Amino acid sequence: MSAEFECAAVIGLGLMGGSIARDLAARGTRVLGYDRDLAALDAAVAEGVVSAALDASLAGIPEGALVVLAVPVDTAVELAIHRAPQLARAALITDLGSTKSSIVAAMEGAGLGDRFVGSHPLAGDHRAGWAASRRGLFRDARVFLCAAPSAGPTAVERVASLWRQLSAQPETIPADEHDRLLAWTSHLPQTLATTLALTLDSADVPRSALGPGGRDMTRLAASSPAMWTAICRDNADHINAALLALETQLGAMRAAIGSGDTAAVGEIFRRAGEWTRPESPARDQA
Amino acid sequence: MSAEFECAAVIGLGLMGGSIARDLAARGTRVLGYDRDLAALDAAVAEGVVSAALDASLAGIPEGALVVLAVPVDTAVELAIHRAPQLARAALITDLGSTKSSIVAAMEGAGLGDRFVGSHPLAGDHRAGWAASRRGLFRDARVFLCAAPSAGPTAVERVASLWRQLSAQPETIPADEHDRLLAWTSHLPQTLATTLALTLDSADVPRSALGPGGRDMTRLAASSPAMWTAICRDNADHINAALLALETQLGAMRAAIGSGDTAAVGEIFRRAGEWTRPESPARDQA
Repeated sequence: MSAEFECAAVIGLGLMGGSIARDLAARGTRVLGYDRDLAALDAAVAEGVVSAALDASLAGIPEGALVVLAVPVDTAVELAIHRAPQLARAALITDLGSTKSSIVAAMEGAGLGDRFVGSHPLAGDHRAGWAASRRGLFRDARVFLCAAPSAGPTAVERVASLWRQLSAQPETIPADEHDRLLAWTSHLPQTLATTLALTLDSADVPRSALGPGGRDMTRLAASSPAMWTAICRDNADHINAALLALETQLGAMRAAIGSGDTAAVGEIFRRAGEWTRPESPARDQA
Repeated sequence: MSAEFECAAVIGLGLMGGSIARDLAARGTRVLGYDRDLAALDAAVAEGVVSAALDASLAGIPEGALVVLAVPVDTAVELAIHRAPQLARAALITDLGSTKSSIVAAMEGAGLGDRFVGSHPLAGDHRAGWAASRRGLFRDARVFLCAAPSAGPTAVERVASLWRQLSAQPETIPADEHDRLLAWTSHLPQTLATTLALTLDSADVPRSALGPGGRDMTRLAASSPAMWTAICRDNADHINAALLALETQLGAMRAAIGSGDTAAVGEIFRRAGEWTRPESPARDQA
């Protein structure tokens, strides 16, 4: 297997960045890396994944490299603003953030739009950090690609090709459409798991008291606070619209239960169950 | 292994009842069974798990048998009221319902309290029906036991022994305390999963668009509507108190996100994460 890029700079060596660094290194790409957690950076070098450490200035990004920003989305935006001259040495820049509008705008505004195609791989889990990173994390994962306005089809194709090399499934989508969709499919489930955890905490119920269903429902609450705080700031309007829609449904559930309207409660559970079975004939005929 | 009971009558042959029927039959107990779904009943007989079918009158319950009510909790209450003479032939009665106050009261009121010790095994999943039943479902499961006021220690010990024979872990708890606790640990996660499913449905988001986290958060929405409608009716006050507490936390989350208060959002995610790690030093010192 020949490496698409001779050299890549991976900024942020957590679960996502560490995993892509491992995959790239295994394919023969020379990987430079940076993490503000120097223990993680040292470990990545010691394990031979990162061949040389960058410093916070990112001055060492080589001409023509692939740059992967694997940091919370607010940090990525700050890097686009404050490290534009260093990033301009890259031939191609992508990121791995869960929101896309702000980083696309920041890269375009920094004059880096011609080489920026953002990525959002639907991979990873509630674990975080270099220690959780692993090869193959992105295998079979759907990856949303959001190109900056100035990025041409060649840049998009190079990023898509990178993901296909890692056995992922890239697809392009406009950044604003991506952010609206993800508010429902990802940010709403996450904020809800977090809210449920705090609700149980407020009632002095420990996680160990939950059955398997309750454990499923609170697993995401362990996710990285820094990452999710940035996502919530970045996609606040869409997330709050989704939360409001949920509160409406919760109110309907509570009203049906409170009034003893068994038929209404049954209909709520029946419709929710139907949603989980899109292949069912009843649904197809509806 | 000798069977504790020579004969058991299992009423309801879904996931839970079917599984306990399989376990009992495998231990040498003669199992009689009833299910209003005659296909399930036929299958249970054809597979040799149920040695004889009962009819809806339950007239065939033999003197001295163990009776297991494995039906929605409202149906169990109706059976206690309308089938008391037939149930009175049993030496010991238990049920498998997720709420306990109403069935304990109904059994006591029907004059069957001396032989009733309700069970709530924390086992099972979102699947339902005889086809989903299996041996070993209760292995290592926590099982709450709620005795009727008239039930003596011998009755409690016999039911506890039954569960230990199935490798489960029984523990006694007053019925009202059980129902309050389960509203938080089980009924709240379930109603929330159902509500999330309807919210996504309202936004035309199919389950296939979710990542692994969102799929975890909506798995429970496939649970049996009949079972959960009965639970919601039976434990309405406790469930609605839990839902209201959740709405309070949701409102706080939405306000923090909406006002751009990054510190408050970060604190929400940090505290929720801490709750998931009760063994962490930070928590222990708090």
